[in-house]
Formats: sequence, structure tokens, C-alpha cells
Amino acid sequence: MAEDSATATREDEIGLDSPHRLIASNRVEGTAVYDRTGDKLGRIEYFMVDKVAGQAEYAVMSFGGLFGLGGKHYPIPWDMLEYDPNRGGYVVDLDKEKLEQGPSFEAGQEPAFDRNYDRNVYDYYGVVYTW
Amino acid sequence: MAEDSATATREDEIGLDSPHRLIASNRVEGTAVYDRTGDKLGRIEYFMVDKVAGQAEYAVMSFGGLFGLGGKHYPIPWDMLEYDPNRGGYVVDLDKEKLEQGPSFEAGQEPAFDRNYDRNVYDYYGVVYTW
Repeated sequence: MAEDSATATREDEIGLDSPHRLIASNRVEGTAVYDRTGDKLGRIEYFMVDKVAGQAEYAVMSFGGLFGLGGKHYPIPWDMLEYDPNRGGYVVDLDKEKLEQGPSFEAGQEPAFDRNYDRNVYDYYGVVYTW
Repeated sequence: MAEDSATATREDEIGLDSPHRLIASNRVEGTAVYDRTGDKLGRIEYFMVDKVAGQAEYAVMSFGGLFGLGGKHYPIPWDMLEYDPNRGGYVVDLDKEKLEQGPSFEAGQEPAFDRNYDRNVYDYYGVVYTW
């Protein structure tokens, strides 16, 4: 009973489907990402954040491998994500083909995410970088 | 062999102990937090991030309950955290008593994190809020 109530509170207050501004980092992980037509593109595995400033810079997406094993990870600039309160998830203005052909790496073999890498990703998606 | 190499890459490139700017969100979770004297205060369970802007606003700390069960969670403003590359963790200018007497909630029963709540936390720690 107490546990049910605690779960409900967590869902209500800090889920992506809540009206609040903030969400727990471990709730962003696993959140669905949709395209403009409402088709599910994949999900956010985790996101890359500036250690000092605390600013999220990339969402790292997957298409969800078989049995959750392996598979490729696709970093997309955080600014491409639009939060959709109705869906309780994120929407990106991308189709699956664009994403599939985009920069990617094998799970567990992350790149250095240095400025050269950043530039490649931002250029691919046509997102302006400001550094 | 391939797996060892993948693990090494992940450790080198995106761990808190790496020289890179960015860290994976799921690596911040679990990271140790130290006081100025080098004593471990606790660890970051997760962090609260603005759904839209992607800005981390709170680190949610715990002292690590027995067997990882339950225990209280302590939100502290993200700006209080200083990243210490030598320790591979975060340092805060707090002692354990100040933290223990600070705002907290039971694990799984997060508050709404609305502006009133924010104000209480920021006032307690003497951190300036800019909204």
C-alpha cells in the first residue's frame, strides 16, 4: 500500500508525462522518441552531459536491439529533441532513414566526443553549434 | 578480448575520470561526492534535469542505505558541485551535518520540485536562484 502510493507519486511528479519542469535523469533513459508522424523511432539509452555545467549535449538513441543486447547507438544533439507532453516522450524532426545513416557507434565503444566529433554530428543534422 | 577493449574505451573516454568534457548520464548516477577535506559524503543517485532545456538543476544524493534499500534522498543545487578530475568525482563545500539536516525526501517519494520547493532548497544552501 505504502509502496503503491510511493510509485504513484513518482509517476505523477517526475515522469515525462507530468506537468513539471524537471525529470529525473534515470527517467529520461529509456524514454521513447517519435518522428513527426507519431511513429516511434527508438528510445534514449542515456544522454551526454557537460560534467561541469550540467548541460545535456547529446541524447544517445538506440532502436532497441534483440533481447536488449548490443546494437548501435546514435548520438543526436539535445537541441533537436522537442518534449511532447501529450505523448510523454520526445519528438524529433527526423525520419528513420536519416537517423540510421547518421553517426553511430557500437554500444560500449563510445567516441571521445571531442570538438571534431561534435562538428561531424552537428553538421550531419544541420544543427548550428555555437562554440 | 574485444569486450575488455570496449570496457577500457568506455572507462577512458566517458568516465568521470576522463579528461573529456562530457559524461554519460548513467555514469553520473552512482558517482561519489566528497567534502573539502576529502571525506566521502555520499553518492549521486540521479539528477534532476529540465525536460526541455536539458540543464541539470539538482543532484539527488544519498548516503547509501544498508543493502541499497530505501533511505533518504537529498537534493542539492547542481551548481554546488565542483568536478574534481583527480578524484574522478564531485566535491561540495558542505559538511555531513549540514547535508543531513537539509531538505530530503524518502526514496521513491519525490517532491514536485516546483518553485517553492526550489526556493527552500536554494535558501537552505545559500545558493542564489536566478528566476
